[in-house]
Amino acid sequence: MQNAKTVRRVNVGLIGLGTVGGGTLQLLAQNSRLIADRASEIVVKRVCNLDIPYTEAKIAELGLTETTATSDYHDLVNDPEIDIVIELIGGIHPALEMVKAALSAGKSVVTANKDLVASHGAELFQLAAENKADFLFEASVAGGIPILKALKDSLAANNIVEIMGIVNGTTNYILSQMSHTGADFQPCLQRAQELGYAEANPTNDIEGFDAARKMAILASIAYNANITEDMVYVEGITKISKFDIDYAAQLGYVIKLVGLARPGADSETTAENSVEVCVYPLMIPLAHPLAAVNDVFNAVFVEGDALGQSMFYGRGAGSLPTASAVAGDVIAAARHILNGTKGGYGLRLFAQRQVLPIGECYNKFYIRLMVQDKPKVLAQIAEAFAASDISLDSVIQKRVMDSGLAEIVLITHQVKEANLQEAVERLHRLSCVDCVASLIRVKGE
Amino acid sequence: MQNAKTVRRVNVGLIGLGTVGGGTLQLLAQNSRLIADRASEIVVKRVCNLDIPYTEAKIAELGLTETTATSDYHDLVNDPEIDIVIELIGGIHPALEMVKAALSAGKSVVTANKDLVASHGAELFQLAAENKADFLFEASVAGGIPILKALKDSLAANNIVEIMGIVNGTTNYILSQMSHTGADFQPCLQRAQELGYAEANPTNDIEGFDAARKMAILASIAYNANITEDMVYVEGITKISKFDIDYAAQLGYVIKLVGLARPGADSETTAENSVEVCVYPLMIPLAHPLAAVNDVFNAVFVEGDALGQSMFYGRGAGSLPTASAVAGDVIAAARHILNGTKGGYGLRLFAQRQVLPIGECYNKFYIRLMVQDKPKVLAQIAEAFAASDISLDSVIQKRVMDSGLAEIVLITHQVKEANLQEAVERLHRLSCVDCVASLIRVKGE
Repeated sequence: MQNAKTVRRVNVGLIGLGTVGGGTLQLLAQNSRLIADRASEIVVKRVCNLDIPYTEAKIAELGLTETTATSDYHDLVNDPEIDIVIELIGGIHPALEMVKAALSAGKSVVTANKDLVASHGAELFQLAAENKADFLFEASVAGGIPILKALKDSLAANNIVEIMGIVNGTTNYILSQMSHTGADFQPCLQRAQELGYAEANPTNDIEGFDAARKMAILASIAYNANITEDMVYVEGITKISKFDIDYAAQLGYVIKLVGLARPGADSETTAENSVEVCVYPLMIPLAHPLAAVNDVFNAVFVEGDALGQSMFYGRGAGSLPTASAVAGDVIAAARHILNGTKGGYGLRLFAQRQVLPIGECYNKFYIRLMVQDKPKVLAQIAEAFAASDISLDSVIQKRVMDSGLAEIVLITHQVKEANLQEAVERLHRLSCVDCVASLIRVKGE
Repeated sequence: MQNAKTVRRVNVGLIGLGTVGGGTLQLLAQNSRLIADRASEIVVKRVCNLDIPYTEAKIAELGLTETTATSDYHDLVNDPEIDIVIELIGGIHPALEMVKAALSAGKSVVTANKDLVASHGAELFQLAAENKADFLFEASVAGGIPILKALKDSLAANNIVEIMGIVNGTTNYILSQMSHTGADFQPCLQRAQELGYAEANPTNDIEGFDAARKMAILASIAYNANITEDMVYVEGITKISKFDIDYAAQLGYVIKLVGLARPGADSETTAENSVEVCVYPLMIPLAHPLAAVNDVFNAVFVEGDALGQSMFYGRGAGSLPTASAVAGDVIAAARHILNGTKGGYGLRLFAQRQVLPIGECYNKFYIRLMVQDKPKVLAQIAEAFAASDISLDSVIQKRVMDSGLAEIVLITHQVKEANLQEAVERLHRLSCVDCVASLIRVKGE
């Protein structure tokens, strides 16, 4: 059935034909009629990719008769018929130069590039505003989950009380595997690599850097502030042992790598002053909605002062899920062009915000210690905590190892992190303490 | 810290000061600075409510110096300074007349009125388009959860493979209570009424009518079709017994009242032909994301052909959560007004869709039978199913009651519903069958 209404048309240029680029080209081709009905005809006029023969074969395979291939991005940026440039090559350079050139030419830009947005976001928002162009990047955080648009639009009347995000599928897969199989970190990482969920060099994922970029973007939008990845406190998951996973389960928790953003503990209101933006392993109560988010799935838990608790769940990576977010942004940019409001809905990062140093943050802690199995050890430990003004919620377990050392697990009340660090130094100085084996934050009430 | 930028201002009129109306007035007042920073100053110029003294007291309590009270909605609709009318009185009349008058006057309308949208949606979308006004109704489905905007915008490049929604908090609370306490339906309904989760006359909730309205709205957007509440097949939860809840748990399921929308089983593609839109109790596997949605929480599970599985979770009712969605729509309407694109993003219900009769739908079924405890009973039952072309997945339990009757639980494979109804009639004709105690659909693979 053909539509009676006038067909509206927007031309697009696509840079990068990797996993996400290939998925985007495929999605725009296979759902072209649906997209035309809902918004406008979207024609991919040019694809820029170094491997021209591969690109031409892909274009032919999808039956795209109006699409040509180039290896020079200037061919897209300088083409006056192209309205929207989609940047999907990733990394900072030359993506930054490409995006700047496109925005400067007054073209709207859609990207999935978290590295770029988390490091040069404010500069690019500014450039987009100056050139009355859209700069959209939904796919840069949590893949197909439409969390950025929700924060910008639907939740705009809310002060954001807290964001907790499972925004890295690789680490969530590894921790889920450790939890379900009882295996330790290394074999689970290896399994993730075999399945293609982790890269050969997994540093960016397992050290939390990838999650930190996403949290910088989320926090910038939630708190209307310019927060870059270097401002985010990060701990990865390499130190999490199967013993911690096991104790967590006994205590009614599950360990997840969580990105957290919330007003700083020193803030009077959520609308001003400092923010906390961190990525670290966190023990989450089993009843919390995030606790059931397993394997490579992502989820962002948002608490708003009016909305209350909400959660957005889905696939945070992968060719078509990410392409879904890219295409959603392309449709938004196309609608703005056809309505004459290109660049009319840009972000304004108006707030003055300091990111609170980690030492100033408050958390509950799980601490696993290896100690000499001697009398009065517990009293010495309790004294070390008391000297740093830390009160203990509970002392959970004590088992004697083959080595003759005993294992003690403690949970603190909410403490200032600087005080906890001081207490840990005290513990290290005690002759009865062999080592502080683990130190993991606990989601407190 | 005052903003340097020019303050932009939009005037709003609010009709209805009940739970949601009061929450909306409060939210727009308490977060006015945040909203002004993110979009524009939103001034509630007039509130229309029959109880003028109460309204004036509320206005004074919130410190709203620019707001006046009226009991006549024409005072809002005819006020040329009012840009947006918020309708929060609910029900069809006089809400329909109010909304039509506002749209006809070229004012954008924001509503939480599911009854109105589920019965008169297409007519109101049309009227809004003719008058270049926005007609927004995010709060009408799943309260604060921004599912309509996600479907309209972020997921617009997806064919929607399936929507499964827990969109009624009352029934979800009752079923959660039955599940957690082992109690039967009636005491759990009574508890819900005591807590204010269920109304004195709970028919709309427990019979599934409220959920049906929300599913009509969701399906209309997901499938760009004009689907009204009378087209939705509905079964409520009044027949669910504690025995079913218990068997479900033994089988690895939980029973939820689910609204379902998907392309009809006779459709070649998801982009055309028929759709299924139903509300009924469904046995959901415990590992499914919806299975953990408990108490009064709502969640909408959406599978897109590109996005894959996603879920949107939060509070589906309540004063401030619903006000969050209303205020989000007001902000969107205000941005459109200030950008000169009022009415530029309306819904176009272009698709020709038939809603598939329930008899043509395919499902797996759980069937609980009370039968005579005699030899060859099972053979007769199996024959009745075979005669209607239904194959059984499993025969799960058999226990003999004090009455001398035996209980049998069967699970079918996917069957055409008409065939199942035929088989049930055959069962009723068997002298060995005392009754078909329960018939509940099962989420199949």
